[in-house]
Amino acid sequence: MVPRYSRPEMTAIWAAENRYRIWWQIEVFAAEAMGKIGMIPAEDAKTIRGAYDRDALGEIDIDAIDAIEAVTKHDVIAFLTWAGEKLGPEKRWLHQGMTSSDVLDTALAVQLKQAADLLIRDLDELLKVLKRRALEHKLTPTIGRSHGIHAEPVTFGLKLVQAYAEFARNRERLAAAREQIATCAISGAVGTFANIDPRVEEHVAAELGLTPEPVSTQVIPRDRHAMFFATLGVIASSIERLATEIRHLQRTEVLEAEEYFSPGQKGSSAMPHKRNPVLTENLTGLARVVRSAITPAMEDVALWHERDISHSSVERFIGPDATITLDFALARLTAVVDKLVVYPERMQKNLDRMGGLVHSQRVLLALTQAGLSREESYALVQRNAMKVWESDGQLSLLDLLKADPDVSGRLTDDDLSALFNLDYHLKHVDTIFDRVLGTHA
Amino acid sequence: MVPRYSRPEMTAIWAAENRYRIWWQIEVFAAEAMGKIGMIPAEDAKTIRGAYDRDALGEIDIDAIDAIEAVTKHDVIAFLTWAGEKLGPEKRWLHQGMTSSDVLDTALAVQLKQAADLLIRDLDELLKVLKRRALEHKLTPTIGRSHGIHAEPVTFGLKLVQAYAEFARNRERLAAAREQIATCAISGAVGTFANIDPRVEEHVAAELGLTPEPVSTQVIPRDRHAMFFATLGVIASSIERLATEIRHLQRTEVLEAEEYFSPGQKGSSAMPHKRNPVLTENLTGLARVVRSAITPAMEDVALWHERDISHSSVERFIGPDATITLDFALARLTAVVDKLVVYPERMQKNLDRMGGLVHSQRVLLALTQAGLSREESYALVQRNAMKVWESDGQLSLLDLLKADPDVSGRLTDDDLSALFNLDYHLKHVDTIFDRVLGTHA
Amino acid sequence: MVPRYSRPEMTAIWAAENRYRIWWQIEVFAAEAMGKIGMIPAEDAKTIRGAYDRDALGEIDIDAIDAIEAVTKHDVIAFLTWAGEKLGPEKRWLHQGMTSSDVLDTALAVQLKQAADLLIRDLDELLKVLKRRALEHKLTPTIGRSHGIHAEPVTFGLKLVQAYAEFARNRERLAAAREQIATCAISGAVGTFANIDPRVEEHVAAELGLTPEPVSTQVIPRDRHAMFFATLGVIASSIERLATEIRHLQRTEVLEAEEYFSPGQKGSSAMPHKRNPVLTENLTGLARVVRSAITPAMEDVALWHERDISHSSVERFIGPDATITLDFALARLTAVVDKLVVYPERMQKNLDRMGGLVHSQRVLLALTQAGLSREESYALVQRNAMKVWESDGQLSLLDLLKADPDVSGRLTDDDLSALFNLDYHLKHVDTIFDRVLGTHA
Amino acid sequence: MVPRYSRPEMTAIWAAENRYRIWWQIEVFAAEAMGKIGMIPAEDAKTIRGAYDRDALGEIDIDAIDAIEAVTKHDVIAFLTWAGEKLGPEKRWLHQGMTSSDVLDTALAVQLKQAADLLIRDLDELLKVLKRRALEHKLTPTIGRSHGIHAEPVTFGLKLVQAYAEFARNRERLAAAREQIATCAISGAVGTFANIDPRVEEHVAAELGLTPEPVSTQVIPRDRHAMFFATLGVIASSIERLATEIRHLQRTEVLEAEEYFSPGQKGSSAMPHKRNPVLTENLTGLARVVRSAITPAMEDVALWHERDISHSSVERFIGPDATITLDFALARLTAVVDKLVVYPERMQKNLDRMGGLVHSQRVLLALTQAGLSREESYALVQRNAMKVWESDGQLSLLDLLKADPDVSGRLTDDDLSALFNLDYHLKHVDTIFDRVLGTHA
Repeated sequence: MVPRYSRPEMTAIWAAENRYRIWWQIEVFAAEAMGKIGMIPAEDAKTIRGAYDRDALGEIDIDAIDAIEAVTKHDVIAFLTWAGEKLGPEKRWLHQGMTSSDVLDTALAVQLKQAADLLIRDLDELLKVLKRRALEHKLTPTIGRSHGIHAEPVTFGLKLVQAYAEFARNRERLAAAREQIATCAISGAVGTFANIDPRVEEHVAAELGLTPEPVSTQVIPRDRHAMFFATLGVIASSIERLATEIRHLQRTEVLEAEEYFSPGQKGSSAMPHKRNPVLTENLTGLARVVRSAITPAMEDVALWHERDISHSSVERFIGPDATITLDFALARLTAVVDKLVVYPERMQKNLDRMGGLVHSQRVLLALTQAGLSREESYALVQRNAMKVWESDGQLSLLDLLKADPDVSGRLTDDDLSALFNLDYHLKHVDTIFDRVLGTHA
Repeated sequence: MVPRYSRPEMTAIWAAENRYRIWWQIEVFAAEAMGKIGMIPAEDAKTIRGAYDRDALGEIDIDAIDAIEAVTKHDVIAFLTWAGEKLGPEKRWLHQGMTSSDVLDTALAVQLKQAADLLIRDLDELLKVLKRRALEHKLTPTIGRSHGIHAEPVTFGLKLVQAYAEFARNRERLAAAREQIATCAISGAVGTFANIDPRVEEHVAAELGLTPEPVSTQVIPRDRHAMFFATLGVIASSIERLATEIRHLQRTEVLEAEEYFSPGQKGSSAMPHKRNPVLTENLTGLARVVRSAITPAMEDVALWHERDISHSSVERFIGPDATITLDFALARLTAVVDKLVVYPERMQKNLDRMGGLVHSQRVLLALTQAGLSREESYALVQRNAMKVWESDGQLSLLDLLKADPDVSGRLTDDDLSALFNLDYHLKHVDTIFDRVLGTHA
Repeated sequence: MVPRYSRPEMTAIWAAENRYRIWWQIEVFAAEAMGKIGMIPAEDAKTIRGAYDRDALGEIDIDAIDAIEAVTKHDVIAFLTWAGEKLGPEKRWLHQGMTSSDVLDTALAVQLKQAADLLIRDLDELLKVLKRRALEHKLTPTIGRSHGIHAEPVTFGLKLVQAYAEFARNRERLAAAREQIATCAISGAVGTFANIDPRVEEHVAAELGLTPEPVSTQVIPRDRHAMFFATLGVIASSIERLATEIRHLQRTEVLEAEEYFSPGQKGSSAMPHKRNPVLTENLTGLARVVRSAITPAMEDVALWHERDISHSSVERFIGPDATITLDFALARLTAVVDKLVVYPERMQKNLDRMGGLVHSQRVLLALTQAGLSREESYALVQRNAMKVWESDGQLSLLDLLKADPDVSGRLTDDDLSALFNLDYHLKHVDTIFDRVLGTHA
Repeated sequence: MVPRYSRPEMTAIWAAENRYRIWWQIEVFAAEAMGKIGMIPAEDAKTIRGAYDRDALGEIDIDAIDAIEAVTKHDVIAFLTWAGEKLGPEKRWLHQGMTSSDVLDTALAVQLKQAADLLIRDLDELLKVLKRRALEHKLTPTIGRSHGIHAEPVTFGLKLVQAYAEFARNRERLAAAREQIATCAISGAVGTFANIDPRVEEHVAAELGLTPEPVSTQVIPRDRHAMFFATLGVIASSIERLATEIRHLQRTEVLEAEEYFSPGQKGSSAMPHKRNPVLTENLTGLARVVRSAITPAMEDVALWHERDISHSSVERFIGPDATITLDFALARLTAVVDKLVVYPERMQKNLDRMGGLVHSQRVLLALTQAGLSREESYALVQRNAMKVWESDGQLSLLDLLKADPDVSGRLTDDDLSALFNLDYHLKHVDTIFDRVLGTHA
């Protein structure tokens, strides 16, 4: 976790306080269930629950727990020792028949669920902003580019509604991954419930908003986590895509859109004229960071037998890092889109700069419809298009076509002029918006 | 693709024949739709469809197409040129208003869908075999191990039913990834439908069993593919997990299960006595190969503007490699599980070899229930357990406990003997099987 | 391996013929060494060597070997069985005291060495072309860009000499990785030389141009291979960098350089005007493919005990794929650079388009030298630069500065004009070229 | 960075204090060089140097710098503003003609060099311990295993000397990577030295123990960093290998070696008898973490044009994380090896448990030397070996061979007994140690 790329709410999920609070909840809810089914005295279970209800770990002393762990070299035992001091003799029922992983893995599930909820909220914010800006620029014409080369007209809103659709998919994926990760295991040393009743697991799961893990070994199986982090990686890649688009649009020669540049901000210590797309470049880097969690998460799946502990150190890194960084990145991207300065005039100017080449396909099709073969049409258009290309847009494709007898023999000047029409390209924008947003808005 | 790790059905999906057949279908179905909505003469559309129905590309000449591509350096143009030779003047309607990516991306979607269907079938086969073997060994006792160290008893069936649950999750994930990948884009040069009607896309999608891509640029967005390959990577990791389990079980010192060793097979060119778990080791390596597709697939997401072509070369590798290898690996794993030689006697022998240490937790709990604190109980059990441990199982934990006055003051010999009971650990096996398989079978 | 991204010489290294030829050499050279030191009859060793010298496996029958392997499920045993048929009773000395890995790993070392030699040759070709084009454009002015935004002038030759320096580093890295990979292990079943003499290993190593592996287990340790593939990944990343640069330069709005576009080539099936940087986009994708070998190669390092065989399937993929693809990519990049169409006029035009903003830093420094603080200077320049920026280069920074009393109070018009001088930026180009190429040429 | 996996010395390298100290050194040394060559007044240069010599940033106020950065959103400008307050009017010479990256990249080079030095020291410690333990167990016999299956005898010292050789290679690789990373760039906004003299760079480089970067753009090229992190990844993989070996050896059924278990340590909260290889499992996970830096480092290479800033956020994570974690892991591995509890008796017991199967190859060779073909010998040995195998080592291979008339017809009982000799396998151990350590010690 790098503080400058983190926000407090997500960071708090990974703080020791939150972890210990969840551990405490697990132990308390488990004791409560044991009391209900008669595994331990009902009265003692109530006492334990009461201690929780009274202060919910308000007096937690992380230093004390750390000091105990330094001796036992075992974090859960350290926690239990410390927690036991808050109770009377009923403390002996804590952790009854449970194993450390019951606490650790269930707590991790709660943290990942909390993180997922926050990320889903982030995505909702981003989607809201993308929708607003997409509608705002639904009919703002701009050049579409393939291979970085001018192709045909699109609208700026189409670019944004594409991003909307992509992040809407990501929201669905994350919701699915959240379900997969939100399971509870209270099944004992090797998952057999030898010393604990499955009903305890069911109770704790219900209290924590989880589902019981159908079959655990000592641990919750790590394919769940691998899927979760892979999903974060896909979201990060979508962030990279939109960030890359904006970086391209802000290039000096293109400058169709620009990150908001606040007063007082300096672009370069050496060059006072610079206004750089540093936020989106930063997002590109953060995407790489989030994705780097995927491979170790996959390598964690093949734990030995009923478990080894190799996944634990990995998760201490990638759990906080991937979620905190992604939360930050989504919020940053939302702000960038929200305040993005868009230059429609420049978009139009760029659209026009190629001398009408963007209409070449339409001419090609018109020639085909006028009876030429596709190959003949292609050759006719290409020979005129190349001249425009080589003039760097100084020549006009329309003029050249009118002057080309092989073309003018098929299409009149009026026919040709009618083909050079921007609206032709925008006639289905409503359809596309409707497909994505479910509305012409 | 490495021939020794491939099977014919999946390989055929990636053969040039299949790709061209799908291209042909796309062009034909598109022409048909154009005929219906009046974009091209209905009669010509019928002629084109007729040519397809007659031979469905039976006479395809891959060499001829390759030769044309060597000149045009453009595969779709080469295909269209060749396909046009099969038609009369109506050939000029082929590819009307479409762009190469309409064909390429939709065809890739069909191939990935076909691949996913095959992989789902593979998973179903594996699940069937896992279920059978899990039920067969539902109550075969074996030692559960955490950290490679004996922990407490489980059953061999529990190990397999865990694998069943994991691969059942993988099946769900793959079904979801299949839906995500199965989209059709026939939207023209930059996705605006400028020269083609959205109804064409809808018709082709329906004919091919796809859904229309709500908003494409020139291409289908690559977050879909990233998610697909990430899902394959998770499945591969689950394969690695089960393969690793079997490799461990076949170790000389453990030997609780063994890959089937066919007559005539040689384990080592140098050591005639060897029987090595080479299939599961191989699966471990293949899992690494499948996973290696994830990162490049993620890097493909951020294509420039409305598309660049950097993803194309990546997909020519990972499309076939990841699906063919995973198909092979799933089939190999299914065969390994199907024919796995299981040694219940050896499992029992291993269970017994630690002098009863596997029952230590139960004694701990009994002492707690008899009124000792958890810490006192732990210390009492540990001091006896360590002696057994250091004797390498020559001493008996039960005997030592009976002889320990601090223990025998709390628990009678009969009490203690009753705690050393295997059935105690298996009482919830039915519950777990029921959760996973929905039956006690 | 994807045929369209492969070249015959590298592909041949990975063909079965080459592999079996190396196996044969290893067995023959080993037998020869055994003859010399008296492990086997000298006469028989000569007969074996004679069989090799006669035809060097000219009559190799891959189908026959494959057929034997189908029964034995062991490739080396299959090969030995087949090779034995070429010999009389002396065939029993083949593979004496050796284990399969002695043959497999040493053969892989030879193949990787051959591949490295080819890749080093590729790098030499690329370096030659980069040097030529760098010298050609040593003083061709072009705008330097940070964050995609115009910064200050550089020369196009500087861009290329940077690439030269980077690939020269890569050549050194590859030479080092080649040394690391080029070791020979003939040490028997677990590396103890129990049944073979270390002198045999030394002889085979010398004959094959390898060094003896100081300590092998059953296999050559895989950290060597991990380092080798990581090095290929770095080279691939450098390819991506130069390819990305060219892709940027070819953008419609920039168009300072362009991939050579051969007559007859079609840029787009739909848009006749397109000339796309498809080769460099392709290189970007191929870089991702080469890099994807790194992680599985790293995962191969931790083989179990004296070896397991999980690395083998991985290497069957990444061995050929990474080297063949990198060979192809280096050759393609060399051709792209060799034939790159450079547009110096356009470079100059782009340089000029920002109204002199590229000289802003020099003015900042001059103001500092004239007595202002850095902060005051920065503010003065920035307020004028922003006006130019917002005019999209229509205003002139020089004019604005002359008209700004806070500036003109410090610097005369002549002073200011003298600061707007391109040569100022190029005065150390010779130094840099000299550092990299060791010559002003 | 996760505190529990970090050590103070490496952590300090990445602390803000150290970074700002290096920034300060760069600015001071640069000013000093400027004074020497007359770019700025010699007297002012001395004043600046004097301020540094006096307190070397003793009074650094990180909060103040952070507060300035919150406004300027630019860390170097913030630092310069703060540093300027320590100086009189000569502060205007700071950063003269330099760009932020001159400071940032050179400082990163110093940090990585410091980190590399520490890691090299860690490797030296590890090598020392490996050497000592290798020599201690040079002739401690143990079973060699391929595929987890007993193969032939080795010594425990051989395992360790193999690790020694591997980490000695890693030391060489790291030394090479350190050289590659230790470069200095003070070349201005786009690397042209337009406003700064190359002699300044040379002076700063010399003062900081770096070499001048032959050609920088705005930044030091990232292929250097990619190679550095890839090298860390290889070292991590070697750690994983040795850790995996120890985990295997500590398995209950094997138990040939064990991590030191301190008094008071608890292996399991639930099972008092457990002693788990948690340190080496932890190392396995940390290896995954270190390796995860490789891919983002590679993705950082292809910065746009003369630079973008996407690498920066990546390096804020992987710079500290990879080096701190690797430092911790090397120290932990050193401690594990140092205190590893080795059980030679158990090794011997395991060696003996397969009824003499480990000698099967030697019998095979003896039969060949007695005139049988390899195939006949293999079949003879295998049929007896399989009986021993199936008896789980209860039968003796030597007894069976003596009783097999096809064998005893070739080899006398004395011949056979002589073949079952452990020393036969250890005769070249000295040679191997000599190769690796250069001494029989």
